[in-house]
Amino acid sequence: MKTITTGILGAGRIGRLHGDNILRMNGVALKAVADPYADFESWPGAAVATGEDPDLVLSDDAIEAVLICSPTPTHADFIERAAVAGKHVFCEKPIDLDPDRIRRTLATVKEAGVKLQVGFNRRFDPTFARVKKAVADGEIGDIHLVKITSRDPEAPPADYVASSGGIFLDMTIHDFDMVRFLSGAEIVEVHAYGAVLIDPEIGNAGDVDTAMTTMRLSNGALAVIENSRQAVYGYDQRVEVFGSKGSAEAFNEVPAQVRLSTSEGISTENPLYFFLERYQASFISELETFFACVRDDKAPPVDGRDGLMSVVAGLAATRSRAVNRPVVVESPGEMP
Amino acid sequence: MKTITTGILGAGRIGRLHGDNILRMNGVALKAVADPYADFESWPGAAVATGEDPDLVLSDDAIEAVLICSPTPTHADFIERAAVAGKHVFCEKPIDLDPDRIRRTLATVKEAGVKLQVGFNRRFDPTFARVKKAVADGEIGDIHLVKITSRDPEAPPADYVASSGGIFLDMTIHDFDMVRFLSGAEIVEVHAYGAVLIDPEIGNAGDVDTAMTTMRLSNGALAVIENSRQAVYGYDQRVEVFGSKGSAEAFNEVPAQVRLSTSEGISTENPLYFFLERYQASFISELETFFACVRDDKAPPVDGRDGLMSVVAGLAATRSRAVNRPVVVESPGEMP
Amino acid sequence: MKTITTGILGAGRIGRLHGDNILRMNGVALKAVADPYADFESWPGAAVATGEDPDLVLSDDAIEAVLICSPTPTHADFIERAAVAGKHVFCEKPIDLDPDRIRRTLATVKEAGVKLQVGFNRRFDPTFARVKKAVADGEIGDIHLVKITSRDPEAPPADYVASSGGIFLDMTIHDFDMVRFLSGAEIVEVHAYGAVLIDPEIGNAGDVDTAMTTMRLSNGALAVIENSRQAVYGYDQRVEVFGSKGSAEAFNEVPAQVRLSTSEGISTENPLYFFLERYQASFISELETFFACVRDDKAPPVDGRDGLMSVVAGLAATRSRAVNRPVVVESPGEMP
Amino acid sequence: MKTITTGILGAGRIGRLHGDNILRMNGVALKAVADPYADFESWPGAAVATGEDPDLVLSDDAIEAVLICSPTPTHADFIERAAVAGKHVFCEKPIDLDPDRIRRTLATVKEAGVKLQVGFNRRFDPTFARVKKAVADGEIGDIHLVKITSRDPEAPPADYVASSGGIFLDMTIHDFDMVRFLSGAEIVEVHAYGAVLIDPEIGNAGDVDTAMTTMRLSNGALAVIENSRQAVYGYDQRVEVFGSKGSAEAFNEVPAQVRLSTSEGISTENPLYFFLERYQASFISELETFFACVRDDKAPPVDGRDGLMSVVAGLAATRSRAVNRPVVVESPGEMP
Repeated sequence: MKTITTGILGAGRIGRLHGDNILRMNGVALKAVADPYADFESWPGAAVATGEDPDLVLSDDAIEAVLICSPTPTHADFIERAAVAGKHVFCEKPIDLDPDRIRRTLATVKEAGVKLQVGFNRRFDPTFARVKKAVADGEIGDIHLVKITSRDPEAPPADYVASSGGIFLDMTIHDFDMVRFLSGAEIVEVHAYGAVLIDPEIGNAGDVDTAMTTMRLSNGALAVIENSRQAVYGYDQRVEVFGSKGSAEAFNEVPAQVRLSTSEGISTENPLYFFLERYQASFISELETFFACVRDDKAPPVDGRDGLMSVVAGLAATRSRAVNRPVVVESPGEMP
Repeated sequence: MKTITTGILGAGRIGRLHGDNILRMNGVALKAVADPYADFESWPGAAVATGEDPDLVLSDDAIEAVLICSPTPTHADFIERAAVAGKHVFCEKPIDLDPDRIRRTLATVKEAGVKLQVGFNRRFDPTFARVKKAVADGEIGDIHLVKITSRDPEAPPADYVASSGGIFLDMTIHDFDMVRFLSGAEIVEVHAYGAVLIDPEIGNAGDVDTAMTTMRLSNGALAVIENSRQAVYGYDQRVEVFGSKGSAEAFNEVPAQVRLSTSEGISTENPLYFFLERYQASFISELETFFACVRDDKAPPVDGRDGLMSVVAGLAATRSRAVNRPVVVESPGEMP
Repeated sequence: MKTITTGILGAGRIGRLHGDNILRMNGVALKAVADPYADFESWPGAAVATGEDPDLVLSDDAIEAVLICSPTPTHADFIERAAVAGKHVFCEKPIDLDPDRIRRTLATVKEAGVKLQVGFNRRFDPTFARVKKAVADGEIGDIHLVKITSRDPEAPPADYVASSGGIFLDMTIHDFDMVRFLSGAEIVEVHAYGAVLIDPEIGNAGDVDTAMTTMRLSNGALAVIENSRQAVYGYDQRVEVFGSKGSAEAFNEVPAQVRLSTSEGISTENPLYFFLERYQASFISELETFFACVRDDKAPPVDGRDGLMSVVAGLAATRSRAVNRPVVVESPGEMP
Repeated sequence: MKTITTGILGAGRIGRLHGDNILRMNGVALKAVADPYADFESWPGAAVATGEDPDLVLSDDAIEAVLICSPTPTHADFIERAAVAGKHVFCEKPIDLDPDRIRRTLATVKEAGVKLQVGFNRRFDPTFARVKKAVADGEIGDIHLVKITSRDPEAPPADYVASSGGIFLDMTIHDFDMVRFLSGAEIVEVHAYGAVLIDPEIGNAGDVDTAMTTMRLSNGALAVIENSRQAVYGYDQRVEVFGSKGSAEAFNEVPAQVRLSTSEGISTENPLYFFLERYQASFISELETFFACVRDDKAPPVDGRDGLMSVVAGLAATRSRAVNRPVVVESPGEMP
């Protein structure tokens, strides 16, 4: 198996996670990691070059594939620079918050002829993948309804919220992608209700912490995404797809398959609390898929269009909440 | 225990169900049943007078309490006649589809000083009552979100649909009441999406068979009701209330607590298919409650205001779908 | 439908339960109840004769069917007297604790040509009946293992224990019948371990409160029954049948299908605590079956042989525990 | 963190599994693997010496810790040679099938002052560990009953069975260890029933494929282990511990937390089929624990006494089945 030489831009929490996973992967070599702010003391190991300058990765001709794990405002620029340098790109979501900027970036990627995969890792979760399979195999017939429950265990700090683009672009964006993934259809119209019920500071920052977003899909089905920034019992990630032949549901993962029965009640374990734990398998699988696409010259299953469509859905939801009426989701336009 | 002499108007499916339940109840005597179309051959037994004329019930001074189980267009008139005759009234939902007509009826009831209970039986289901208790006892803190899944096993005939008032007044009305019951709040604004995905004839009749209705509640919480006219795996009736301290969920009832494990998979029983089976306990409990209120001179827990508010919510949802924008729910006005 | 006139001997808890159920049944009339110790003030109603003398029931020619709900030592005698009087008999378990006495009783029943059903109500429970159906329909193939968990919520008083015949004849007897019912095979050998872990007084009374009984069945399969007199979380009644094609399991019933999720854990309802609640449906169903057999002249599905075999299994287990080695279960002998 | 240099004896399925896990572990270096029959083409990588001769591992002074993954008859000898060479030892179960041989081996280990951990990996499974925690923390009070369901997905070939020592020493041995682990007590007496229900060849080889083993424990509690060589629906590994304050149960792991609802039923995923998948986390955790004990000079949590006691329990069960009466389990004697 051919070894793919790789570099990482951005060594924060997610960059380091990907790096650790790559170090344990067969057929992939991590050559360089660039981050102006990272603490490289305990990571990533002697054989890997580290430094502040992105050129450590972008200008190294031996590096074939780049993982972009830096802050959102840098994504589009780094994608373009990597593409122009002939490197395949895996980029964390979102590509950018401006659809036109995304389109320009995708045009550059297309021109360069490199591969681009966007980090919608949840598609690679074994549980959600099984629901997708039920849909794809026709086990539940034609799709009528998609329902997503997506609740974080703890609200982020209000100052993070202020720079996040808002709940629909920061949190719901994953769920929009899941609706598209599970239904195999596009989101054509969105209506969103929001409320500030958890942290008034989130409201002061102009955002909401609780949201209920409904959608019409291009295949005629309806969908709903329900979000909360704080589920005190743990990270709550469930989906249901309902169709003409039945329903497929995904439940939460727990750390142990245990039940306690006492006079106080019958209890089971809380869901895994932290997204890195909950989605551990998906983070490995999305990278293995990306590297397999690079190796075998195949199109990545989560592409630029997916990156674009989740953003335009998030923008439509943001606007819908602001004006309190349904908003038509921008069509992808002529995709590069 | 004092025996309450009772009569029934309307001996269709639901009237007969209530009658059968009364015949097994202590402290309640069924004296007369009136229905111009009923087949009384096998029911209700020798000691009960039967006939076509509603006066068999309404003009019998010995009858203290009347159950109105006739078609919707007769409800308001029968309530008023029973009230004027000094009889306590249990009436199936809805009181009427016209809020003004409902208000006039409630005024008559008030003037007569009789009791009126509306047939929102689901409030008396042990499972939903347990969720309500979790809310009322503060087990899940302040309410943030209410979610209702309400799917019938089979779509009704299109001609029934044509005269039903539409899905929001025929089917969702129960769910609006459940939102109000569980949250303890009023519905202040509604947005509804609908689709025809099951039976084109339902679309031809001007209705939808699939709907997604979102709401703002008076306590700031959000709610969603999701409806389908056809869930091939059985009657699907679930709720979830999510709050600052946790979540309370209600699941479907099954006919047997059994699991089969074979090489084909691990399977459990389909939910109870028929609403009369699913809600059997609630039908008995709502009548026992009604008769207890009559006996003890207490206010019924599901009253005229509840009957009115579910209808105005249904009308708002109907209009929201038609105009595709959120619609403010009419306030109850000065309640009689 | 022909009405069957019925009498009850013994108006304790179980006699009263059956009586209440009969009063709500179509096609069955309760004419007399005899019990020297019962309080008939609030029960069974004006139309039913009550008194101390069993002849009130046994000597009334209009009574076709008798329910024997009196203490165990009276069962065999009452069965014989009812049979000789030409009455069909439903008798609570056990018929007697002496197999020879049982055989003589069954011979009398046979000679009289009346029907006898023994009160192993759990066979009529919808959940256990569904497991039986899985076995009977071949859904799980040839039977290899039967497992029964049977735990009471609370230990009986030690003085009850002293006169109960011991745990294997008082409690496990139901489970022996369940093993036979589910497997369709006879118990051929038993080994039992017992322990006193809950109440030392039970030990002082010569009994155990915790037991583990294993068995060989006539079809080559193995079985285990595990008993405890005290499960603090509620009445625990589960079975599993495992075979060449899979497994069928029965779980506990709960009062509400509810789940609470909080930071403390995910909890569901405790099992129904009381056996009258848990097996409510089965008590009605076993009587309906008995009366249908009388009406249609069919053999009751739980007969004298079933009554005998559960007792001989209980005796074998009692002896096995005493001598601490496996004990062969007495064969039914030439059944009357 | 100090790096521990390690060698492996035996590169079959389990040796290779451990080797792969070590290669991904921090603080452990794999220096040599010896196996006369292994195919080293694709494994274990360039930096590791491989060969047929065990001295490649045993005579290398740089190797501090040895994993013994070779066939059972070699275990005791390799443990002794490694111990004499001053190496810490992790050995797959069983140490030997002869308790005296085990005792001599343990004496050698003691004399050498090295650490010995036995490969009862299931103790390290997160689910079983959670049950143990419930017991240890007193959540379920005093232990009354332990129940273990242990069913393999597929029967091994009959020729494997012939040399396996029989089901009680090959398969139940893990469950005996689990009984001891969960209860914190010793097994004092065993009774075992066995049957040949799956493969007659297993019977011809003198073994059984289905077994029901009951036990008395040193704390007065009772236990049962139920084994089958073939559960067609997957690897079935469940435990329940029942005590004075409640019950703790462990259920099977599934590959995806998914439920499908169709008109055919409600279905979930089959349990993980293969033990290497099911116990993946435990294999990593047991080694991490072993290396931590070596590094920190602590006593391994699964020691020689654990290795001995599971074997004497297995021998007692084997004998009990042969003579069909309860057999007292040999006491550990004076442990080295």
